Amino acid sequence: MPFQQDPHKLLMIPGPIEVADDVLYANAHPSMAHTSPEFVPVFGEALKMLRTVVDGPTAQPIVIAGSGTLGWDMASTNLLEAGDEVLVLTTGYFGDSFAECLATYGAKPTQLTAPVGAPSSLDEVAQALREKKYKAITITHVDTSTGVLNDAEGISRVVKEVSPETLVILDGVCSVASEEIHMDAWGIDYLLFASQKGLGCPPGLSLSLASERAIRTFEARKTPPAIFFGSWKKWLPIMKAYESGSVAYFATPPVQLIYALHTSLKTITSGTVSLADRLQRHRDVSKQVKDGIVALGLEQLAVPEARETGVANGMTAVRYPPGMGAADILPKMAQRGVVFGAGLHKSCKDEYFRIGHMGVSVVNKERGDIETLLQHLGEVLKENGFSK
Amino acid sequence: MPFQQDPHKLLMIPGPIEVADDVLYANAHPSMAHTSPEFVPVFGEALKMLRTVVDGPTAQPIVIAGSGTLGWDMASTNLLEAGDEVLVLTTGYFGDSFAECLATYGAKPTQLTAPVGAPSSLDEVAQALREKKYKAITITHVDTSTGVLNDAEGISRVVKEVSPETLVILDGVCSVASEEIHMDAWGIDYLLFASQKGLGCPPGLSLSLASERAIRTFEARKTPPAIFFGSWKKWLPIMKAYESGSVAYFATPPVQLIYALHTSLKTITSGTVSLADRLQRHRDVSKQVKDGIVALGLEQLAVPEARETGVANGMTAVRYPPGMGAADILPKMAQRGVVFGAGLHKSCKDEYFRIGHMGVSVVNKERGDIETLLQHLGEVLKENGFSK
Repeated sequence: MPFQQDPHKLLMIPGPIEVADDVLYANAHPSMAHTSPEFVPVFGEALKMLRTVVDGPTAQPIVIAGSGTLGWDMASTNLLEAGDEVLVLTTGYFGDSFAECLATYGAKPTQLTAPVGAPSSLDEVAQALREKKYKAITITHVDTSTGVLNDAEGISRVVKEVSPETLVILDGVCSVASEEIHMDAWGIDYLLFASQKGLGCPPGLSLSLASERAIRTFEARKTPPAIFFGSWKKWLPIMKAYESGSVAYFATPPVQLIYALHTSLKTITSGTVSLADRLQRHRDVSKQVKDGIVALGLEQLAVPEARETGVANGMTAVRYPPGMGAADILPKMAQRGVVFGAGLHKSCKDEYFRIGHMGVSVVNKERGDIETLLQHLGEVLKENGFSK
Repeated sequence: MPFQQDPHKLLMIPGPIEVADDVLYANAHPSMAHTSPEFVPVFGEALKMLRTVVDGPTAQPIVIAGSGTLGWDMASTNLLEAGDEVLVLTTGYFGDSFAECLATYGAKPTQLTAPVGAPSSLDEVAQALREKKYKAITITHVDTSTGVLNDAEGISRVVKEVSPETLVILDGVCSVASEEIHMDAWGIDYLLFASQKGLGCPPGLSLSLASERAIRTFEARKTPPAIFFGSWKKWLPIMKAYESGSVAYFATPPVQLIYALHTSLKTITSGTVSLADRLQRHRDVSKQVKDGIVALGLEQLAVPEARETGVANGMTAVRYPPGMGAADILPKMAQRGVVFGAGLHKSCKDEYFRIGHMGVSVVNKERGDIETLLQHLGEVLKENGFSK
């Protein structure tokens, strides 16, 4: 008899997201030795499937226990050295924090901050790269705090044109498996993400891939990596060992989470819905939610000119209607069994809420999650006396 | 209908260990917002129960996604600053690696290395502390590579006598919940461990507790912590928030693993077997295994004079009989459904194997795990033509 998870509220925040029964069941896998011949191919295959998801056939995947944030530490310490100049494109909370992380390890971040609700401007990026030489540029693909989608492909193209030596670091925490990514074709040097968003797994994994150029940069460092637990020197041989079917040890991998990851990646890369169709469904559902919001008389946090192409396909940030706030919407939605996220951007966190629409809620249409959330939101607004 | 995990080989390595059905089921908990009112008390209670397990009523628990190793990074970067002298008591792989971690962040480790299979000598520790002033001393309570048990209480007493200002850092990865620990009474300043050993959870959590003196030391630092993801500046407010029933965000906690931790800690702190009885059962079973080994004609890796009180109660390192090696024992045990661990100490890893005996395999006697492993080991030895 197949495993069925316990009844629970519908989790429609921009991560963690709803997790499929088979993935949760894999997370309850019996305890296995991290060195066992049964587990080795599971880890190895998961690494290979990650390459497919991000279209990075030449990239080196790295999967360790941690959270998305740990990917920033790994970039700051393996790819960069103290004193390195970094251009940080900031579209919300996560750009600010990435800059703080870089500075912690001695890199010199310069932030290029977009107006709240707007993506980074390609012209401004080009201008900044002309004015100063940067070792790396960081892009938050989707800023989970605002739902802004940056044009990672366009920005990478600008980098190649203006400053091709600059390494491109893409924070894909809220974009991998819900947004189109072509790591190799775009020339992304380091792509970092987490398990609990588009991948549809429980949180607890820090995932990333490094380009061949990133690995060469790492190998040519003048100083040793300023990190121990996240050191590529430690982890690259481990990843290579598991992928080649052998075993190596540095720190115990989170075995159950890797079973869960493997299960989810199987669905994403070779399930009944192709990866291309999965991404198309995210675009379709995003339009459905965003149109639905407008139909209810609400508007996105995103500035008007960004509301079509500058916003995420896996989440929507929505302004409260005039006179309403979190207390009027979020607890009432939760009472109806639907969990939304609060605002997060420091300058306006009380002015908007966030809806996540990624993974099974999007791909498995028969669940009806999107219709459920829109219907309840409409009813809650009506209850509050709001009409369009 | 209660959840039952899939049939699998009996995992008798020194971590990961067998995980109880209810803990695995908690690890398959439906996806929950890390900020949800349902999850907050679960995390808060888990933190409180950790204090009970290590008898550290005044200590501050910290639980984040990671592995035991990450606790070294947190000690090296939050408690210590570049240039700080640290005395590292080494009884195997883990002391060597901890020293390497400390040096990565600029501390100055001095290793006091015990002979293979012997615990650290209290006299030598006293001598070393008299010769030089150390900001901290690190102790591997149980060295998982050799099964040596250090006298953490005795060493702490020596520190208080000879150099009371020296901070005591205890690596309890392979000791928490399988060895007696009295964090406050012994004066341990930082205790770090992992989820997949005595706690009986899946791997993926870095757990630690800091004494009030450790927190004061952290607050009085001259330089900011040399880490971002593991910074106490980031995490202490989060831990305090969850424990007080409110919510704060830095990086997404591994929600399912914290449900699993909560479930296991409930059993450990208020199950039908008391914590004191749990520890006594580990002592009893350890004697049963070690006597059983001798009855089979084998001997411990530990030096003869350490074989009673200087060896772990949660694992046993066993020398292969003359003329035999890993290939003669480990695959044959696995064929019989029992998984043992290989050797790990660099100087002699091919000379011994490791048996883990922690958690449910010890406490739930009706499982018969210990009898099973001893019986199969006897048969495998006989198959190999070995008799006492």
